[in-house]
Amino acid sequence: MTGRETVLRTAYHTKLEELRGDLVRMCDMVAGAMGQATTALLEADRELAEVVIGGDTEIDLLTEAIEGHCTELLALQAPVGHDLRAVVGALRISASLERMGDLAEHVAKQARLRSPRHVVPPELTPVFADMGRMGESIARKAGEVIDSQDLSKGSEVEAIDSKVDALHADLFSTLQDPAWAFGNETLVDLTLLSRYFERFADHAVSITRRVVTVTTGEPYVGVRLDDPR
Amino acid sequence: MTGRETVLRTAYHTKLEELRGDLVRMCDMVAGAMGQATTALLEADRELAEVVIGGDTEIDLLTEAIEGHCTELLALQAPVGHDLRAVVGALRISASLERMGDLAEHVAKQARLRSPRHVVPPELTPVFADMGRMGESIARKAGEVIDSQDLSKGSEVEAIDSKVDALHADLFSTLQDPAWAFGNETLVDLTLLSRYFERFADHAVSITRRVVTVTTGEPYVGVRLDDPR
Repeated sequence: MTGRETVLRTAYHTKLEELRGDLVRMCDMVAGAMGQATTALLEADRELAEVVIGGDTEIDLLTEAIEGHCTELLALQAPVGHDLRAVVGALRISASLERMGDLAEHVAKQARLRSPRHVVPPELTPVFADMGRMGESIARKAGEVIDSQDLSKGSEVEAIDSKVDALHADLFSTLQDPAWAFGNETLVDLTLLSRYFERFADHAVSITRRVVTVTTGEPYVGVRLDDPR
Repeated sequence: MTGRETVLRTAYHTKLEELRGDLVRMCDMVAGAMGQATTALLEADRELAEVVIGGDTEIDLLTEAIEGHCTELLALQAPVGHDLRAVVGALRISASLERMGDLAEHVAKQARLRSPRHVVPPELTPVFADMGRMGESIARKAGEVIDSQDLSKGSEVEAIDSKVDALHADLFSTLQDPAWAFGNETLVDLTLLSRYFERFADHAVSITRRVVTVTTGEPYVGVRLDDPR
């Protein structure tokens, strides 16, 4: 390697690390958004819902910025092998994170739509509180996997996802019980909300699996997301 | 340009055209899958539902193959400008198409889950038949936009999406009407199904807007997907 090549490689790896840092930051942002959206939902807090809805623009802009950085890296450095996979992986991961931000926004919009009423009946508040906590936790955990590249943490992400799937399935049994006493509007709302939380966790799993493909070079297909329905 | 460079550029553009052809083929595949899934749903045709569910693996494999081609193009040709955007765009578009395939599969799984019963009450069959037809049509139209790079066709995609959104909103009014007479299980099923069709159309819009960014170099953010809820 010439001196100039070494400088370029170092600059490149600095940029890759910045990219990774941005992805981790996005994980924390969508985790925070889902946490706040759940609080807004359960406390019928319209102001907080507006904060989440307004904040989604920032998540979208960061997605766009990451895509710009990826394109720049590809154009200027022409990476190959692991480094190329890291950039392609970052494009995919940022798309999942953008979608997770949208899902948190959907939860907040549902809170706003029914404000000042509560969307979730008191009997079901604990289930949604759990889903919110798990959503926040799985997004932060996905960030840790990206940050550490420690694939063993991936199983923790999958474990949280399984719990979310189980809550989702239980909730659907409750919703479809003929004894349901909270009316149609609530039924439709909770069906959608449960689906949002479930999809949010699925994306975190997808991100973690993407880190595996970047690190190992294994193809992504074959690793299917769980779908409880 | 040297002779060798010309040969490389020509090979590159041939590969880009192949990539475009694969994306168009995927549009037709997901269009067909959604058409068949809707038929399976409305005719309670379990065998056809199984065909759609089995066929999703092929869509997933084609997504993987496209990602492989993109990575190869990036590694071997180090494209810049429009050509680079085309590859990055293909990565994003194929991810949307994979998701559209999943949504068609979800519709088919819902048909299978309730088989041999019908999921959709006769009164609501026309709405879902419309949604299925529009889903099929919007996916094929997105394929035409990719194939022709004719951005004026993008407005046709947006127009179909608006119709799907309107059907979705109407259906939600029906579902949330206290006079709903088809029970909770059907209510939950139709809430999810309507959402699947709505998301399917959103992805087609997203694909079309992605073609715009590839062609014009404009950033993607600012072009937000409609969200009726």
